[in-house]
Amino acid sequence: MRRLFENINEWKIIQDNIEFEENRLAESIMSLGNGYMGMRGNYEESYSKDSHRGSYIGGIWYPDKTRVGWWKNGYPNYFGKVPNSINYIGINICINGEALDLAKANVEQFYRELDMKNGVLTRKLIADVSGNKIEVNVVRFLSIATKELGVIKYEVKSLNFDGEVTFIPYLDSNVKNEDSNYEEAFWVNISSESSKNTGSVVVRTKDNSFETEVFTVGANMKVKSSKEPKIRTNTNKEYYSENTMIFDVKQGETVGIEKYVSITTTRDYNKDELLCKGEQILSNEFDKGYELLLKEHCEAWNKRWESADIKIDGDKLAQQGIRYNLFQLFSTYYGEDSRLNIGPKGFTGEKYGGATYWDTEAYCLPVYLGVTKKEVSKNLLVYRYNQLDYAKANAKKLGLEGALYPMVTFNGEECHNEWEITFEEIHRNGSMIYAIYNYTNYTGDFEYIKEKGIDVIVEVARFWASRVHLNARKNVYMIHGVTGPNEYDNNVNNNWYTNYIAKWCLEYASENIAYLENEDIEAVNRNNVSKEECEKWINIASKMYLPYDNELDIIVQHDDFLDKELIKVKDLPKENLPLNQKWSWDKILRSCFIKQADVLQGMYYFGDKFTTEEKKRNFDFYEQYTVHESSLSPSIYSIIACEIDNLDKAYELYSRTARLDLDNYNHDTEDGLHITSMSGAWLSIVQGFAGMKTFNQKLSFNPKLPKNWNGYSFNINYREHILNIEVNKEFVKITNLSDKSVNAIIYGQEYSIDDEVTVCLVVNP
Amino acid sequence: MRRLFENINEWKIIQDNIEFEENRLAESIMSLGNGYMGMRGNYEESYSKDSHRGSYIGGIWYPDKTRVGWWKNGYPNYFGKVPNSINYIGINICINGEALDLAKANVEQFYRELDMKNGVLTRKLIADVSGNKIEVNVVRFLSIATKELGVIKYEVKSLNFDGEVTFIPYLDSNVKNEDSNYEEAFWVNISSESSKNTGSVVVRTKDNSFETEVFTVGANMKVKSSKEPKIRTNTNKEYYSENTMIFDVKQGETVGIEKYVSITTTRDYNKDELLCKGEQILSNEFDKGYELLLKEHCEAWNKRWESADIKIDGDKLAQQGIRYNLFQLFSTYYGEDSRLNIGPKGFTGEKYGGATYWDTEAYCLPVYLGVTKKEVSKNLLVYRYNQLDYAKANAKKLGLEGALYPMVTFNGEECHNEWEITFEEIHRNGSMIYAIYNYTNYTGDFEYIKEKGIDVIVEVARFWASRVHLNARKNVYMIHGVTGPNEYDNNVNNNWYTNYIAKWCLEYASENIAYLENEDIEAVNRNNVSKEECEKWINIASKMYLPYDNELDIIVQHDDFLDKELIKVKDLPKENLPLNQKWSWDKILRSCFIKQADVLQGMYYFGDKFTTEEKKRNFDFYEQYTVHESSLSPSIYSIIACEIDNLDKAYELYSRTARLDLDNYNHDTEDGLHITSMSGAWLSIVQGFAGMKTFNQKLSFNPKLPKNWNGYSFNINYREHILNIEVNKEFVKITNLSDKSVNAIIYGQEYSIDDEVTVCLVVNP
Repeated sequence: MRRLFENINEWKIIQDNIEFEENRLAESIMSLGNGYMGMRGNYEESYSKDSHRGSYIGGIWYPDKTRVGWWKNGYPNYFGKVPNSINYIGINICINGEALDLAKANVEQFYRELDMKNGVLTRKLIADVSGNKIEVNVVRFLSIATKELGVIKYEVKSLNFDGEVTFIPYLDSNVKNEDSNYEEAFWVNISSESSKNTGSVVVRTKDNSFETEVFTVGANMKVKSSKEPKIRTNTNKEYYSENTMIFDVKQGETVGIEKYVSITTTRDYNKDELLCKGEQILSNEFDKGYELLLKEHCEAWNKRWESADIKIDGDKLAQQGIRYNLFQLFSTYYGEDSRLNIGPKGFTGEKYGGATYWDTEAYCLPVYLGVTKKEVSKNLLVYRYNQLDYAKANAKKLGLEGALYPMVTFNGEECHNEWEITFEEIHRNGSMIYAIYNYTNYTGDFEYIKEKGIDVIVEVARFWASRVHLNARKNVYMIHGVTGPNEYDNNVNNNWYTNYIAKWCLEYASENIAYLENEDIEAVNRNNVSKEECEKWINIASKMYLPYDNELDIIVQHDDFLDKELIKVKDLPKENLPLNQKWSWDKILRSCFIKQADVLQGMYYFGDKFTTEEKKRNFDFYEQYTVHESSLSPSIYSIIACEIDNLDKAYELYSRTARLDLDNYNHDTEDGLHITSMSGAWLSIVQGFAGMKTFNQKLSFNPKLPKNWNGYSFNINYREHILNIEVNKEFVKITNLSDKSVNAIIYGQEYSIDDEVTVCLVVNP
Repeated sequence: MRRLFENINEWKIIQDNIEFEENRLAESIMSLGNGYMGMRGNYEESYSKDSHRGSYIGGIWYPDKTRVGWWKNGYPNYFGKVPNSINYIGINICINGEALDLAKANVEQFYRELDMKNGVLTRKLIADVSGNKIEVNVVRFLSIATKELGVIKYEVKSLNFDGEVTFIPYLDSNVKNEDSNYEEAFWVNISSESSKNTGSVVVRTKDNSFETEVFTVGANMKVKSSKEPKIRTNTNKEYYSENTMIFDVKQGETVGIEKYVSITTTRDYNKDELLCKGEQILSNEFDKGYELLLKEHCEAWNKRWESADIKIDGDKLAQQGIRYNLFQLFSTYYGEDSRLNIGPKGFTGEKYGGATYWDTEAYCLPVYLGVTKKEVSKNLLVYRYNQLDYAKANAKKLGLEGALYPMVTFNGEECHNEWEITFEEIHRNGSMIYAIYNYTNYTGDFEYIKEKGIDVIVEVARFWASRVHLNARKNVYMIHGVTGPNEYDNNVNNNWYTNYIAKWCLEYASENIAYLENEDIEAVNRNNVSKEECEKWINIASKMYLPYDNELDIIVQHDDFLDKELIKVKDLPKENLPLNQKWSWDKILRSCFIKQADVLQGMYYFGDKFTTEEKKRNFDFYEQYTVHESSLSPSIYSIIACEIDNLDKAYELYSRTARLDLDNYNHDTEDGLHITSMSGAWLSIVQGFAGMKTFNQKLSFNPKLPKNWNGYSFNINYREHILNIEVNKEFVKITNLSDKSVNAIIYGQEYSIDDEVTVCLVVNP
C-alpha cells in the first residue's frame, strides 16, 4: 500500500508533493465542511488533468428518475441525489495573460495542509509559467461561526518578472453530477449578476414529477484586493458571474485577493429574499475583516476539540487518524439542524452523498452522545421522528403494517432500488429503535419517549408483528427473505441479528407501553395501542426463532449458514481479495465470507445480554470468515476483540478503521470519504480499548492499552458531566471536570467520582 | 374475462369488429411469420391511434448497452435486442387526397381473419372517408415457400363516388425499438432508391463496442397495379423509399395493387450483393404471379398440417386454441436454419423477442420431435453445440469450470442482467443435456452423441462438479445460491430440481463416457476426460443432497420451503392475484406461492423415475400453492394431473395453456405472443391426455379423454414412422401410416403395429 501523504503530523494532513495520478484521492482527503455545506479539496484555479470538482449543500437534493434493468414491484420512482452545486471557490489566475494550470505549469514546490485543529486548508507552491516564476499562497475555510460563509485568501508573488497578474474570482453554477442517471443537469438558471467586486448567481433544482421539494440556491461573492487593479471588468451570463482584475506586479511583489462567499437556500429563506439575505450576511461578515473571521472560526473549532479530542501517546499514525475522523465527521454534522443527517460521503462526493442510512443510528449516534451536548444527538432522533409518516407509507407499499424506515432517504421516502436491500435489509428498522434506547439510556432523557419516541417505537413494533410469520409445524415465529448487516448474503431466512433485534423491538415496545400506562397514558392513547396488541407483541417475541448450533455452541448467522463451504479468510489465496472486485456476485453470495459484522453487530448492540465466553466463541468463529469489505465492520470487531482480551486483533482492526481513508484501504476514497464509518475509530478507542459501556444507565470502564501505545486520553460528556479518561501503562485516571459527582464502574468496581479517581491498569495475561 | 375475438372458427381467427381499445392485443394475435421473418398484425395503411408497429428478422440483433441501477460483478455488458426493422408492409391510401386512417374514418364494416390452414391474413372493410365510401380488401402472407418473400394484395372499391384513389406503397427503415435502453435507434441508413414500380432501402445495425456482428438488411419492393395510374411519382430519402400512384375511379370500380417485397441480410449474403440478390429473388417470384405464389405458400402450410394437426371433437375453443399454438410456433421456427432458435415472443414483439431461453429445450423440442422430421430437432441441438465456447467463457467469468449456457442469448454470450437469474438460474444448464437425452432417446440417433453431444455433456458435467460444494459435516454435496424454475423464489439453497438434474447430468455424462470408451474413444479423448474425472462425477452424484420431508413424504422444493407460511391459493383473496402485479417483490419471494412447475418439472422430465403414487403426493401438495403466473407452467401440471388421473384438473390447466394468448390470460399479450409456451398445448394433449411417453426408447400411450370432448386425434413422427392416434369415447386406435412395423405399449401392453391396432378406452373410476 502506498500512503499518499507520508509526512505525518498529529494535527495536520500534509501533502508535500503535487499529485497527478491520484488527484481525486487527494481532493477527497482535503475536503472541508461546516455542517451546512462543504466541498472537495479542489484547486481554486483551473486544473486540466483528472479531477472531480464538487461542492455540496446540506439538505439540498434532487430526485433522479430511477434507472434499473428490470423493474420489481415496490421500487421507488426516484433515487435522491445530492446535486453537485455552485463552484464558489473558483479563482482563475493568469500570468502575463497565460492561465495558471497546475497540470501544465512547471510546479517546483508544492505544499498543502489541512489544519484539523483550526479547520483551515492552506496551500503554498512555486510554479513556473512559461518562464515566469510565482509563489502562490492560498488559505481557505468554511466558517463554523457563520454557516453561510466561505472565505479564500489567494496571493501571488512574482519571483522573477515584472508583468501582469490577473485574478478572476467567479461563481459557476453550470455544474453537473457525474452520477446523474440520465446525464442531465439538475439545475436551472434563475439569475446572475456582477458588478465591481461583487457577483451573484441563483439557480434552482429542476422541476420533477415526483412532487418533492424544489430548492433554490443563491451565491453572493464579495472580493477585496490587496491593491487597486489596473483594469477591472465584470461579466455575467447564464449560470455564471465573474470579476476580472488585472494587476501590474514588480519582481518580488505580492498581490492578492480575499474572496468572501455566502450561500443561502430556500431551506432557510423565501426564494425572493434569498440573495438579499445572503448579501446582508456577507456584508456583516465582510466588514469584520479576514483576521477576525478566521479567529472566530478557529476558536469554534478549538472549542469542539476541547470536548472531543482523543490523545494517543506513542502512535502518530493512530493519533492523526482519530483526529482526521473526528474532524471530517464534525465537518459533516454537528447537530445544528434536525432536518439534516449524516450522509455516508458527507460533502466529499456524490455516490451515497448526503442521503441518510442506518449508519447514523448504528455508528455515529454513540460518538455524538459521547462528545457533544445531548441536543445534537436528540436532533438525529427527531429527524427520524419527523419522517414517521413516510416510513408508514413505505411499509404499506410493501403490504405491511406499521412503519419501515428507508434504506436511503432525503425526505423520509425510500429511494434505493435493489430489491435485496430496499425490501429486505429491514434490520435497519431495529436501529431506529435502538437509537432511542441508546439516547434515553445514555442521557436519561426519558421525556423523549413520551413526547416523540413512543410513536416510532409502536409503529416499528407493528411492522415486525406483521413481517414475521408463524411456522406452525415448529410453533415459532420466523422472518424469511431478509438481508442482514452482512450484505454478502442476500434474501436469507432467519438472519439471527434481524430476528433478535425484531424480538427486542417488540419487547422494548411492550415495556415502554407498560411504563407509559403509568406515566403518560396520553402517549399510549394517541398511538391506539390496546392490551391485545401488546400481548401479541410479547407472544411473538417469546416465540421468536433464533438459530443456534448446539454442537458448535454458537449463534448461527442465518438458516443454512453452516451448510456453506467454510473456508477461512487466511486460507484464501490473497489474489481473491477484495472479493467485491475479484469475484462474481453469485460466488460472493454463496461463499461463507462476511462483509461486515452481523452476529457480532448484535453482540455489540446488546453487549449486556451475552457473557464474555459467548462473545469469545462467536467472535472466534465468525472472525475467521470476515473480510471487512465494509468500512463499518472493523470497529465493531475491534470492540468485541477488546472485550474478549484479544488485544492484538483489536489493534489490527482499529488500524483498519482509523486510517481507512487516509490510507485508502478500500481503494475507493477517490469517490469521497467514508464519513459515517469515521465514527468507528472513536468507538474502537472509547468503547473498545477504554471499554466504556452505558447499559442500563450504568457508566462503566474496562480500560486496556494496546502494546505499542504509551497511553491515551479523551473526554466524554455523560449526563452533563464532562469526564476525562486517561489510560497509560501504569494507571487509569478518571477526572470529573464538572461540579457534580458522578458514579462510574471501573474494572467492575463502582466509584463515586467527585474530582478524580485513579486505579492501576489491569493487564491481562 | 373479455374474449377479444368471439366468433370461433376451428381453422381461423376471426375479428369482426374494429378494435381501438386493445389494438395492440389484436396486432399481437394477428401476427404472421415464416421462420425467417415476421411481423405484428399492423395495418398496411396509416393508423393514428395506439399501435405498435413491429417487424422482425430472425437472427438479426443488436447489443444494447446494459442499463442497471447497481452493477454486480459478472454482469454482461450488453442486452441483446431484436431490432424492430424495416416496415415493408406499408401502403398509404388517400381518397380524393385524404388519407385513409381507420382511427379517424367512419368504419362501417370490419372483418379480419387469420387463416391458419393456409397462413394467410385477410381483411375486408367498408369505411367512409369524409363521405366517400370505400370497400377495402387486403390479403397478406409471408411465403414459407420462399423465405425472403412477403406479398400483399390491396384493393379499394369506390362505393359511392367518382374520384381519385392514391396508393403509396413504401419501405420505411426509420424505425426504433420501444424497449431501447437509451432511446437510441439501432439502425444506420446505407441507401435508398425508388423508380417506377420499385424501391429499395438498405440499413445496417449501428457499430457497437462489444465486438458483436453488425448486420446489413436490404428490402426490395416491386409493385403491380390493376391498371395504369393517372399519375405516378417516386420518392426516396434517407431510410425511406416510396412509389405514389394516383388512379381515377368510377363508382363501383375497384383498383388495387400487389406489393411484393424481398428481405435479404448479411446472414446469407455479402453486403455488396444484398440488394442484387434480393432483386433476383423478387424478379423470379414476381414473374410467377400472385396466384401461383399464394398456391405454393398454402400448399406448404397444408403439408405442415398433414403431419402436425391435432383434431379435437366436441370443443371448438380447444380446437382453435391448439391450432393457433401450432401455427404461431411453426411461424417462428420450422428448423430450416441451425443458426436460429425460438424466441419467447418470436416475431411478435420486442421484449425477450428473438433471444434464446431454456424454453426451447424444455418445452419446444418435444413438439418438434413429435411432428417434424428429426433434422428440425437436431438443428436446435446443433445451435447450442455451436455456442459451446461462449458457454465455457461464461462459466469462467463466474469463476467456474466447464460450460454454463446463458439464460438469454443471441450468439451464445449471456446478456441477461438480474443476478438472481443470470448467475443463479443455472438449472437451465441441465436442460441442454436433457435435450440431448430426449433427442437421442426419441430418434435413436446416437451418432449425435459421438459427433457433437458428448462435448456439451462433458463441459456441463464439469460445470456442475465445480458448482457443488461438499458439506463436510453432513458429508453430502450441496448447491447453494440458485433460482429454480420457480422464479418466485430467488437465491435459495438446494433447490431439489436443480440438485436432481445436476446429479442426473453427472451420471449421464459418466454413462456416456463409458459407452464411448467402447464405441468411439476419439470422442472421449478429444474432451480429455480421465478415469479420475469420471469417478469424481459419480462420487458427487452419489452424494448429492436431495431435500425430502419424511413426515409429509414429499420432495422439498428447496431448503426452508416448508418453513414458509403455507397458504393455499384457494384461500388467498382473489384481489391478490396476479401476485406479480399486486404484491411487492419481497412479499412474493417469501410467500409459498409457486410461479411455475419446479418439483413437478423434475417429475415431468424424469417421469420414469417416480411412481404414480409419488407423483400424486407431490402434485397434490405443490399444486395447492401454484399460481401459474408463468405461461410455461400449466401444461406441465396438466400432464402430471393426467398421470395421476385427476382429469378435471388436467383439463382446467390445459385450457389455461391452450388459449393463453387468444384469451389473454396473463394480461400481457399486447406485448407479443408467448411463442415458446405455445408448445404447452401440444404437450398437454399428446403427453398428457394421450399419455405418450418415450422413456428408455420405448413408445407408450395411456390415453384418457376429457369429459366434454367426444374425441381427439393427432399424428406423430416416431423414428421415421408416422402414426395416427385416435381417441374417442369407445376406443383408442393407433394407425401406422408408414411401411414398417412399429412397437408401442398401450395401457401397459405392448403391440407390434403393422397397420393399426384398436383397444377400448380405459376410463378410470
